[in-house]
Amino acid sequence: MTPSPFTSALTGALFGDEDVAALLSDTAFVAKMIAVESALARAAAEVGLVERDAAERACAHLSELQVAPEALGAGMASSGVPVPALVRALQDACGQDGDALHWGATSQDIVDCAHMLQWRAVLEVLEQRLAATLDALAAASAAGADTLMAGRTRSQIATPITLGLRIATWAQPLIALEAELPALRAQLLRVQFGGASGSGSAVGESARALSDALARALGLEPAPCWHLDRSGPQALGGWLVRLTAALGKFARDLITAGRSEIAELQAGTGGGSSTMPQKSNPVAAEAMVTLAQYAAALQPLLAQAAMPSEERDGAAWALEWMALPQMGMAAAAALRHADGLARSLRADTARMGAALEHGNGAAMAETASFLLAAHMPRQEAAGCVKAALAAARAADTTLADALANDPCCGPLADWTAQLDPVAAIAAAESMRQRILSRRQAR
Amino acid sequence: MTPSPFTSALTGALFGDEDVAALLSDTAFVAKMIAVESALARAAAEVGLVERDAAERACAHLSELQVAPEALGAGMASSGVPVPALVRALQDACGQDGDALHWGATSQDIVDCAHMLQWRAVLEVLEQRLAATLDALAAASAAGADTLMAGRTRSQIATPITLGLRIATWAQPLIALEAELPALRAQLLRVQFGGASGSGSAVGESARALSDALARALGLEPAPCWHLDRSGPQALGGWLVRLTAALGKFARDLITAGRSEIAELQAGTGGGSSTMPQKSNPVAAEAMVTLAQYAAALQPLLAQAAMPSEERDGAAWALEWMALPQMGMAAAAALRHADGLARSLRADTARMGAALEHGNGAAMAETASFLLAAHMPRQEAAGCVKAALAAARAADTTLADALANDPCCGPLADWTAQLDPVAAIAAAESMRQRILSRRQAR
Amino acid sequence: MTPSPFTSALTGALFGDEDVAALLSDTAFVAKMIAVESALARAAAEVGLVERDAAERACAHLSELQVAPEALGAGMASSGVPVPALVRALQDACGQDGDALHWGATSQDIVDCAHMLQWRAVLEVLEQRLAATLDALAAASAAGADTLMAGRTRSQIATPITLGLRIATWAQPLIALEAELPALRAQLLRVQFGGASGSGSAVGESARALSDALARALGLEPAPCWHLDRSGPQALGGWLVRLTAALGKFARDLITAGRSEIAELQAGTGGGSSTMPQKSNPVAAEAMVTLAQYAAALQPLLAQAAMPSEERDGAAWALEWMALPQMGMAAAAALRHADGLARSLRADTARMGAALEHGNGAAMAETASFLLAAHMPRQEAAGCVKAALAAARAADTTLADALANDPCCGPLADWTAQLDPVAAIAAAESMRQRILSRRQAR
Amino acid sequence: MTPSPFTSALTGALFGDEDVAALLSDTAFVAKMIAVESALARAAAEVGLVERDAAERACAHLSELQVAPEALGAGMASSGVPVPALVRALQDACGQDGDALHWGATSQDIVDCAHMLQWRAVLEVLEQRLAATLDALAAASAAGADTLMAGRTRSQIATPITLGLRIATWAQPLIALEAELPALRAQLLRVQFGGASGSGSAVGESARALSDALARALGLEPAPCWHLDRSGPQALGGWLVRLTAALGKFARDLITAGRSEIAELQAGTGGGSSTMPQKSNPVAAEAMVTLAQYAAALQPLLAQAAMPSEERDGAAWALEWMALPQMGMAAAAALRHADGLARSLRADTARMGAALEHGNGAAMAETASFLLAAHMPRQEAAGCVKAALAAARAADTTLADALANDPCCGPLADWTAQLDPVAAIAAAESMRQRILSRRQAR
Repeated sequence: MTPSPFTSALTGALFGDEDVAALLSDTAFVAKMIAVESALARAAAEVGLVERDAAERACAHLSELQVAPEALGAGMASSGVPVPALVRALQDACGQDGDALHWGATSQDIVDCAHMLQWRAVLEVLEQRLAATLDALAAASAAGADTLMAGRTRSQIATPITLGLRIATWAQPLIALEAELPALRAQLLRVQFGGASGSGSAVGESARALSDALARALGLEPAPCWHLDRSGPQALGGWLVRLTAALGKFARDLITAGRSEIAELQAGTGGGSSTMPQKSNPVAAEAMVTLAQYAAALQPLLAQAAMPSEERDGAAWALEWMALPQMGMAAAAALRHADGLARSLRADTARMGAALEHGNGAAMAETASFLLAAHMPRQEAAGCVKAALAAARAADTTLADALANDPCCGPLADWTAQLDPVAAIAAAESMRQRILSRRQAR
Repeated sequence: MTPSPFTSALTGALFGDEDVAALLSDTAFVAKMIAVESALARAAAEVGLVERDAAERACAHLSELQVAPEALGAGMASSGVPVPALVRALQDACGQDGDALHWGATSQDIVDCAHMLQWRAVLEVLEQRLAATLDALAAASAAGADTLMAGRTRSQIATPITLGLRIATWAQPLIALEAELPALRAQLLRVQFGGASGSGSAVGESARALSDALARALGLEPAPCWHLDRSGPQALGGWLVRLTAALGKFARDLITAGRSEIAELQAGTGGGSSTMPQKSNPVAAEAMVTLAQYAAALQPLLAQAAMPSEERDGAAWALEWMALPQMGMAAAAALRHADGLARSLRADTARMGAALEHGNGAAMAETASFLLAAHMPRQEAAGCVKAALAAARAADTTLADALANDPCCGPLADWTAQLDPVAAIAAAESMRQRILSRRQAR
Repeated sequence: MTPSPFTSALTGALFGDEDVAALLSDTAFVAKMIAVESALARAAAEVGLVERDAAERACAHLSELQVAPEALGAGMASSGVPVPALVRALQDACGQDGDALHWGATSQDIVDCAHMLQWRAVLEVLEQRLAATLDALAAASAAGADTLMAGRTRSQIATPITLGLRIATWAQPLIALEAELPALRAQLLRVQFGGASGSGSAVGESARALSDALARALGLEPAPCWHLDRSGPQALGGWLVRLTAALGKFARDLITAGRSEIAELQAGTGGGSSTMPQKSNPVAAEAMVTLAQYAAALQPLLAQAAMPSEERDGAAWALEWMALPQMGMAAAAALRHADGLARSLRADTARMGAALEHGNGAAMAETASFLLAAHMPRQEAAGCVKAALAAARAADTTLADALANDPCCGPLADWTAQLDPVAAIAAAESMRQRILSRRQAR
Repeated sequence: MTPSPFTSALTGALFGDEDVAALLSDTAFVAKMIAVESALARAAAEVGLVERDAAERACAHLSELQVAPEALGAGMASSGVPVPALVRALQDACGQDGDALHWGATSQDIVDCAHMLQWRAVLEVLEQRLAATLDALAAASAAGADTLMAGRTRSQIATPITLGLRIATWAQPLIALEAELPALRAQLLRVQFGGASGSGSAVGESARALSDALARALGLEPAPCWHLDRSGPQALGGWLVRLTAALGKFARDLITAGRSEIAELQAGTGGGSSTMPQKSNPVAAEAMVTLAQYAAALQPLLAQAAMPSEERDGAAWALEWMALPQMGMAAAAALRHADGLARSLRADTARMGAALEHGNGAAMAETASFLLAAHMPRQEAAGCVKAALAAARAADTTLADALANDPCCGPLADWTAQLDPVAAIAAAESMRQRILSRRQAR
């Protein structure tokens, strides 16, 4: 396969995302850098560093200018940053008004600000998709509020839950992530302005005013220089990794629940095989798992990037470029798949019901145990249930029947009624609503 | 070396931390699990599931009970969790009052709650150390506010900054982390109560009341079951990784600034060599870098843990146990070292000054360039400065002298005065204060 | 849980391993360092650097000496390596003969050599366990050579295989790892001798002879100094990660095959629940998956350690100490669990047979498709099979019946006989033998 | 920046590599898949599964066919693999001869074989570059065989070495990697043929013969199916990570040695700054460090990919696609940079000599210590040297002078002559030759 799976003609539609690819493209990045240079020129005029007219003329030139990424590739390769080549191109385009550009800035100021503008746009797309996916999950959860199914813990059938609760648990970490978006934006979308060594000294006393004016012009938070404080990129990465992991969990459960032997849930359309006519592979869910593992693997790079040497560090900083856009694409693609799957969940309630009867009704063993505990010590109760389960298996009947037929336990409860899994709906519904209400409280 | 570097008799004093090791020890963990079982018994009485007197008698038994971790090792190995063996031990100790214990809980409820109690205590230690380290850095930064030194970007001498600013940039991410502690606690320190499959169904309608009562008893946030929502552990891990990375950056800079050829800053006491009498190795700083890289490597495990299968997953959950205590120890040890280094920073101002004169005064080239730009186009100004630098090197004089002697540039400024690095202090001081004021605003 | 899960009284029996813990203990490490110092003294005598008698007397002292790790902890903390404190302790014990010790060596020489002696012993343990596990898997594979089961690809029932083949695929990567052990040992178990800066200059012309004599004395490969060439530790880490991953795959398959709804394979004894009487959790297999993920996460640290700065780097080197012993313990524990599981595999052949009939015999769809392709174009054949599968589902009969009843396909084959899964045994057996013969060829 | 840094118009020339990008492109991959299908058709004819004439006609069609990656994108997205869409496209192109194609193969067979063909070509490129880089390093090492410089350990000046030795240590891990290439190829470049569930059952008794014929046709090693044994991809990843790490160490040393304050070594051409006229940033070396960290971070994904579920696993397998091509590109780009840097190394011997005099000649302290140890106990000798160093510093003279002037030590050696660093050349030269001779022995 290709070193560029997100944008490849072959794999982009599976692992990538058109919308976010456009926002994170070279072209978009160059355009944002030009926007930052324009804003900086106006800000420099605002604080009196350059003439307002010159700045406006320069901005007029830039507003019509498109610089092809290809034109900056050689400069990027020789400088390790695209800004020297870009500034030359912009100054060439502006003629003598070009002197109004790039006052007091270093390459990192331009690149980090441009990235923040890109991420502002990407986060809007992700927020919309996240909201849509949560809406779909909430609807599916409500629809499954009364659908009993077997909870599975540690690979084994445990006790009854509802489909609605399981779907709510898929939504649970996503709700937290949605709620954290304002704080993430406040921490991330900050103006970057520090000049050569982070003090803004090239513009002397004007540094702070210039930084603040630039922030206003770009709609970013005013902030001290963060050349060396990568809290924002780390927080972004953490949010993206948590997002892809939450979606990966959803996907992993879909793969399991859609296994041939379980087949309780289907979603989306299955993928075909090159040799087996019957196959319907969980392609989208598999991709979500892949993307989650991939995004997680990149996370340590952001910690490395947060350990730059001295005032700026070319090797450390570039690690963010190798990790964050990739995480963003993974998140966008995973959310797109998740949305499609959440909207197309199809439950096989018959199979869900059958699973609850698995093992002669073992899923009700805990309930039986607590019912008996009202009449005897709890270890004794657990022992009676184990014995009844063994009896049920031997006679191929249900746990309820075995308990009813047990001379000791039989009279202690209306076993058939009280071991009906339907009794588990109330607790599951309460938990389901508690989870989802965290979002409705918005 | 040992598989247990944090608690080893050989390496514990370097890589570990006594205070946090005590809080994260097996003994402390078992004690916290017993505390959780006590609180659960009282909460069960409060909501009417068990008799108040029985609960109180059980708690009285537990309050005097110590269970050795060794006693639970075999049970842990056979169950994958320590709780079944612990509950048996507790019930044995309580006699018939033991039936008041462990109502409606699953192992994960007890373990996660106990972990939260441990982390509450660990975060207090870390917060105190973080505050002390920030105090020390703030003091050192203030003391160095007027000490000029050469900023280095991409391994090269760039422009003048102050020692105070550099120290402030070490504090910068730590200030953010300190400010985030309340939000981290709110997200992390939540009660865990879900029972077998996360719905609390074993206690039926009482589940929510029991969960909330347990939260009150433990002083944890009330919350829906988070068996499957590992937002809290992930947020904790993210905070710890960012902390160790921020300290790793501080340490890396100390190692560089303390190199034989630079020798601008020393801190702590150097380590000896087994063969070279003159060596004074930066042992504590090296350990901080090691710990930062180590903690970062573990972070993807928390994303894996956030992708559990179905209602509970023994393999995924245990990944948190392999990552979080280790990250906590790394953070504690790194903070301890950082505090010691921050308190003992010793600057060699003569060497700092000499570095600013390096390369015939090249550190002032940017300043010169901006001064000339008031009189000529900026590309021309940059060209004049490059020519003057070359002339200065050829004549082994300073950039200021070369510019003063240049027939074109000479008259345009008072080069000796205006290229005095002291002019850079004001901007550095403004940025320094802006960075540190984020903390003072607490 | 604890920061030291491998040696904890609570978790050591699950995640750790007594045998390897003893070999990797602080005590063992100190003993090996003393052994290296003894060997170095004798080697120094051999090449004429010290008097043979003095060296022998020193070795006699050392042969009876035990140095407690605790006694070196403070020295480790101040120097970042245990050797200066150790050498002082040894010289104190040897009196004036102590001058025969530590000629020309730097700390890293002693530590790396001691580690190699430890790893030589650990690899012997791992090799024995690996061989035993492979023996058990080979036996189980042979026993299941005729046991048909459904192959599953991408979570779905695919085509018939044999249990024997599946077990053989678990063994397959282990066979490769076993075969690589000689090459691994040759690359890893090398003498380390470089002195202060890696040239051995402290002993001048004797450096190479001393290094080779030390290699002979320790039974390590002669080699140039590898202070900076971490090929050996990286190769070791790669081997350990591949080993734990291969065991993790085995474990993951056991968890899946032992699920309540599949229940085709059981192994070992299941773990109990604190609340559900019926549970039998796959504790050992879960631990194997956890250990595999954990070991994999540490691997990047070895690449970091392979990028040391200049002649030696305290921060980078120590990363090996944070990763390799942990990986070794994970491998040892995982192998111990694997051996137990491999020896106790229990197949439910009835359930395996039932799974093959799943989906009206869809597992035979590929076979049917190839049979028809002898009589018609392959796309047409695939279409006929899909139609027959749909017909079989509608009539709740088998694919073979549906094809037999199809007017077009019916005459083309003896469908009942030719779609008997038993036909798949031959190919599976051939592949099974081919896989396992790689080992038998030893 | 972009999610596709290796192929981006902006960053590709820095982080990527044209030659390897072409070999790993979508177009190349599709072409290799077609080549595999052709070879499979001929192999099927060879073993009698299809008619030789039909196979030849199909191959003739395929030999002229180009399938655009775009044409397979939708099929990739729906199937998770490109093969079903490709086979349809090939069969369409072949008309009725299309039935000769894809006998007995599953998607993974085609994809893995195609990948192996790609990696065979990539490894040839990497081998050539590695050889060229080693040639350049060997030449530079020989040229620096007599150039004394200060070895630095743990950030401090240690003892004298030669530039030739330092360069040899950069080559050392590369020599090992070059020597391992035959073994890597034997382990990696294997035919993949297993059919749907890995037993080759679709072609019954012909499976092994078909697999072997396919191997011959493709020039790959015959092998049992390795759908589940990812030893080869893991070994490839390990080799690539070790390669990029070794180059990262070289680069890191260049960055340090080229620092403004050290300036002992330069290589390549420095990158410009957008604001500082004097800067010459180590762009290529920084990129090499970035690429090394990036490649290392991806390595755990290969362990995840080696833990597939059951007979095939869509999510795990795809992790190789997210890691290996990226690692290959990183290695190719890093090697290209390394080659350029190795060819352009420029030493400043004056500065190297000056560093040896640093600290009043402390770099000779170890030598002095060993000289004195011939006349007194070693601890006493070390004490005398420390005292002499202090005296030298106080008097601002050299260690040799201070020892010569010491009444006790003065007579024991000809200090000026015996502390001449030139004495260290012999040992360094011996080690240098020993390291490089490992390659010459090829």
